[in-house]
Amino acid sequence: MNTDDKKFLNIAIELAEENARSGNGGPFGAVIVKDGKVIATGVNSVSTNHDPTAHAEIIAIRNACKNLKDFQLSECDLYSSCEPCPMCLGAIYWARPRRLIFASDRKDAKEAGFDDLFIYKEVCMDFQLRSIPTEHLPIKTRNAPFEAWKNNTDRIDY
Amino acid sequence: MNTDDKKFLNIAIELAEENARSGNGGPFGAVIVKDGKVIATGVNSVSTNHDPTAHAEIIAIRNACKNLKDFQLSECDLYSSCEPCPMCLGAIYWARPRRLIFASDRKDAKEAGFDDLFIYKEVCMDFQLRSIPTEHLPIKTRNAPFEAWKNNTDRIDY
Repeated sequence: MNTDDKKFLNIAIELAEENARSGNGGPFGAVIVKDGKVIATGVNSVSTNHDPTAHAEIIAIRNACKNLKDFQLSECDLYSSCEPCPMCLGAIYWARPRRLIFASDRKDAKEAGFDDLFIYKEVCMDFQLRSIPTEHLPIKTRNAPFEAWKNNTDRIDY
Repeated sequence: MNTDDKKFLNIAIELAEENARSGNGGPFGAVIVKDGKVIATGVNSVSTNHDPTAHAEIIAIRNACKNLKDFQLSECDLYSSCEPCPMCLGAIYWARPRRLIFASDRKDAKEAGFDDLFIYKEVCMDFQLRSIPTEHLPIKTRNAPFEAWKNNTDRIDY
């Protein structure tokens, strides 16, 4: 195990533990590192901020991107106290960091009462089988936004 | 097709089209409805806000929860111009709305240059096989945050 990896992962775990103890939110923390330095951190604040998207990794990604004034995390490493849930993993793919390192996993999260494992199963199912009733209504205008996008020559691809 | 569903889905599509045309962000829009009324909307602003998590559904969920002062969207329906990506679908599972309705799908998004289909494949793989190098380092203190969580009797479960 790389010494720096252990150091940064421990920071994420300490943030998670302190967050759970303080009552700020769920027991999760994340740290983003560039050039050997922490450039952003995040802790879960779902309940206190009334924001179901306020997971540690999402907050850390938003903070890091704000600091870098970029929507990409090129050359950054993301350390998370726990395996990212599908929401956070999706955010990681959109942010495109160099590496992801995590400590506990989706089964540990399940043991503690969190839906991560359940959501992984749901995301990988056909939508017709999912527990949240979902309808695909392919109405005629469905691709008009994509046409407008392709026609906007000033668009910023991401 | 339910008339109201078509009406609300069209609002999401119009928001998406206008967003792409204006240069504010990607060609995606979302609407959240409760008791037959729109309580929040969202459009993609990844590039203009330097925020890779600023997808239409995430923004709409955050706005709706802020308005409801709750981290749950009980009895709400979420309409999206396009099938939610894994990040947004994960957010939907954490927000727990009643229903999800979408118009275009992950294949349409791919045609327009977006990674949705690719990210669905990655999320459903073992992490060892994913394109973003990922390491699971189960260090000794990994479950200390969950212990602190269980021991905090004032915790707010979510």
